[in-house]
Amino acid sequence: MNNAQFDATLDLVFEREVPLPPEAIWAAWTQPEHVVHWFTPAPWQTTECQIDLRVGGLFHTEMKGPEPGQQFSGIGCYLELLPHRRLVWTNALLPGFRPNPSFADSSCGDFPFTAQIELEPIAGGTRYTAIVKHRDAAGRAQHAAMGFEEGWGKALEQLIAHMQRI
Amino acid sequence: MNNAQFDATLDLVFEREVPLPPEAIWAAWTQPEHVVHWFTPAPWQTTECQIDLRVGGLFHTEMKGPEPGQQFSGIGCYLELLPHRRLVWTNALLPGFRPNPSFADSSCGDFPFTAQIELEPIAGGTRYTAIVKHRDAAGRAQHAAMGFEEGWGKALEQLIAHMQRI
Repeated sequence: MNNAQFDATLDLVFEREVPLPPEAIWAAWTQPEHVVHWFTPAPWQTTECQIDLRVGGLFHTEMKGPEPGQQFSGIGCYLELLPHRRLVWTNALLPGFRPNPSFADSSCGDFPFTAQIELEPIAGGTRYTAIVKHRDAAGRAQHAAMGFEEGWGKALEQLIAHMQRI
Repeated sequence: MNNAQFDATLDLVFEREVPLPPEAIWAAWTQPEHVVHWFTPAPWQTTECQIDLRVGGLFHTEMKGPEPGQQFSGIGCYLELLPHRRLVWTNALLPGFRPNPSFADSSCGDFPFTAQIELEPIAGGTRYTAIVKHRDAAGRAQHAAMGFEEGWGKALEQLIAHMQRI
């Protein structure tokens, strides 16, 4: 794990050993046709994904829940792209690095974060580490209460199943 | 000017021809010992500057006004560094790309922005373009009312004078 500016009081970490090479995990994260198959833990679905894979580029997902009206739009901006090694994006900025107006009102219930995915080749696969950085302890607590650990775990299982199937 | 995601309703642009080579302007922006000489329009002063010149790294300035108690801390994170060509940083993120908690409360009077400095070599010097991207029209209006055009103009004159003197 890259510990740069890691803060245990503000960040959440998810770490697993994955039986896929870093290249396959990178593809799963960076190609919309893969993202829709795994990004949202079932029974939620990712119905749309757009990716402009360059620093400052767009990462957009549309997510749909099992109940009518359960819909969520995720929009982010890539910050660092080291093919097969590190992918960093944030929802605090829109494409072109514009500050995201969604967070102008802190009472809207949503919170900004930066996600850093680290891929390290190991025997038999990849050490997969996600570090999610929040702006404050409240954001971290909210994300943890939403089921961060379980959600990322389920999504990663879906990623593995999908990439092993294709 | 790089027009990627430029939006005239949200952004402010400052453009000048400068009688310095791009290398000198780059040095003025990226070396603390230069920054303190020009970054804040007089009679304000930049009393401190720390720079960790890498993507995700810190850009920190301390500014002091002529009246007692007039003090302002600027903190930002570098997003893109193309030596002698383009420098992008934002105050919406802290170093390590962490969302900046200062903007959790929109009533605090401050506003997030991303500054993109473009340097293009021309005969006799550099075309210097600063594009400052805001999250909403209110942020743009507030920045304009603070004297964006005059402030960036005065700072650039100070930059030129300082780099011509050394």
